[in-house]
Amino acid sequence: MAVAEFFYEFASTYSYPAALRIGALAKARGVDLAWRPFLLGPIFAAYGWRDSPFNIYPAKGRYMWRDVERTCAAMGVPFRRPEPFPQPSLLAARIALALEGEDRAAFSREVYTAEFGRGLPIADRATLASMLAACGVDPKPALERAESDANKAALKAECARAAEIGVVGAPSIVTRDGEVFWGNDRLEQALDWAAERR
Amino acid sequence: MAVAEFFYEFASTYSYPAALRIGALAKARGVDLAWRPFLLGPIFAAYGWRDSPFNIYPAKGRYMWRDVERTCAAMGVPFRRPEPFPQPSLLAARIALALEGEDRAAFSREVYTAEFGRGLPIADRATLASMLAACGVDPKPALERAESDANKAALKAECARAAEIGVVGAPSIVTRDGEVFWGNDRLEQALDWAAERR
Repeated sequence: MAVAEFFYEFASTYSYPAALRIGALAKARGVDLAWRPFLLGPIFAAYGWRDSPFNIYPAKGRYMWRDVERTCAAMGVPFRRPEPFPQPSLLAARIALALEGEDRAAFSREVYTAEFGRGLPIADRATLASMLAACGVDPKPALERAESDANKAALKAECARAAEIGVVGAPSIVTRDGEVFWGNDRLEQALDWAAERR
Repeated sequence: MAVAEFFYEFASTYSYPAALRIGALAKARGVDLAWRPFLLGPIFAAYGWRDSPFNIYPAKGRYMWRDVERTCAAMGVPFRRPEPFPQPSLLAARIALALEGEDRAAFSREVYTAEFGRGLPIADRATLASMLAACGVDPKPALERAESDANKAALKAECARAAEIGVVGAPSIVTRDGEVFWGNDRLEQALDWAAERR
């Protein structure tokens, strides 16, 4: 079976269209996809950035907002900018990591469509609990697992591994032979690569 | 006639595959392409960068070199990293701006294939003179026009205009309605946009 890892960050704008597209693209190529929620914060901190580069460099931010808007319009999905940007994504990432298989993918899509499809905040527990329920996941035990010390440590380890592999932004696809493909515009190329080297 | 502007920087790695691809893509869509050599230096200076971001942030640089290598391999064109990187691109940009129409496009492709296809330096006058000759352009008058005060001022004005339009990197395509598309991976989308809004 061909495999690929999909690294995504809930605060990342381009991870939103990627999260909506990637399931069907992987399935069409027979690629088994591992969803890997992680945080860009530690990676950006190593660059000396304490905020999104789209806020640090406003011209890049203006470009990105328009580019994502065009991308979503071409896909036929809604796009709305959440305030503030970036949204605090730590708890959402912990919850996603605490879920398995299709629950993780479904919850992740639910978070992204709320955040960037409807412009809603994603930081607080009650909001995330209702998203879990919308995915048919019992919120209370999921939140307990999410906030366990073991899960917190596991998320830290995921972030460290992403940096070590050479992930520099989100979304990124990593294939079994260690190739990193960065960006919503690299999904097809990455999954073709994974399929050809199964 | 549909029109689009192609902003490119001779030191930019991703401008190399873009310069080789864009002519046929524009022609196929009936888009009249204006080649716009410019410099990223003034734009990067506004971000506080005095070097390529691929040197300032080595992890991003490692990613970029591998990504460009894969892109060129998929296109079937050679790729070789020039040393040092980035190459000083001022004189090449001045020469390109001093040329008209197809001469400008041919010279620009010549510079890119030498620089990133064969890894050769592009900074010095003699090298650039031989590239002009290879394109059937008389080097001496072309270099004189390139180094005239009027042409130097014209290149500065191009850079200022690029920044004002919202160009944040190279290559970028700008359509008549002011849309900016950044990246070798946006050429098709940009030229489709230009063709649909002629």
